[in-house]
Amino acid sequence: MNVSTPDARSECSSVREILSRVGEKWTIQVVVALRLGPRRFNEIARQVSGISQQMLTRTLKTLERDGMVERTVHTSTPPRVEYSLTPLGQSLAENVRRLAEWAATQREIIEGNRLQYDTRGRP
Amino acid sequence: MNVSTPDARSECSSVREILSRVGEKWTIQVVVALRLGPRRFNEIARQVSGISQQMLTRTLKTLERDGMVERTVHTSTPPRVEYSLTPLGQSLAENVRRLAEWAATQREIIEGNRLQYDTRGRP
Repeated sequence: MNVSTPDARSECSSVREILSRVGEKWTIQVVVALRLGPRRFNEIARQVSGISQQMLTRTLKTLERDGMVERTVHTSTPPRVEYSLTPLGQSLAENVRRLAEWAATQREIIEGNRLQYDTRGRP
Repeated sequence: MNVSTPDARSECSSVREILSRVGEKWTIQVVVALRLGPRRFNEIARQVSGISQQMLTRTLKTLERDGMVERTVHTSTPPRVEYSLTPLGQSLAENVRRLAEWAATQREIIEGNRLQYDTRGRP
């Protein structure tokens, strides 16, 4: 059986890239904060507790550069800047939601497994 | 609109835990290596190029502790030890596959977005 396919290798590399991006401390929380609709900078900052202004700026810029987030300037007085998910960002949010559901469902099982492993030792 | 639901908070935390686990350098590759069936230690080591014996041992132990991987000792002479995915590990593998598909599909788009962002600057 051919187990070392190039497909498996490239699959690993692309999923690792996306997971390391998605796994960054603030990315998920910012994406989740934007899932329900456009938000202003300060609204996001309030929702993502513990994030610094500088880190929120950086996270939004990275997501904007990837095409996940769109920055819109409304020409009111004073101008109002809003951030929203693009369709690409929404599809990321959907993937995150699915994985989160799986993680939430499995969490107790995994914790039970760990406890069992730690108490019984290995045969 | 209530944007700061406790659900969103706990969803973030459980997805972050699972992502940080899954995002570990070797975990995905070992899970992918086991996706097609049981493997011996040296078979996995060959498939996951670049992994040290020590790191493979550690990765397998962590996955076993989580209940993702099962270690079976066949009583032959010499005894043969095989590692395989449990149903829980298979469901992780399935999630990884889905995310990898998404990442592979979006990769070119994301790279194009970055190039566009870097060349045009921001309005």
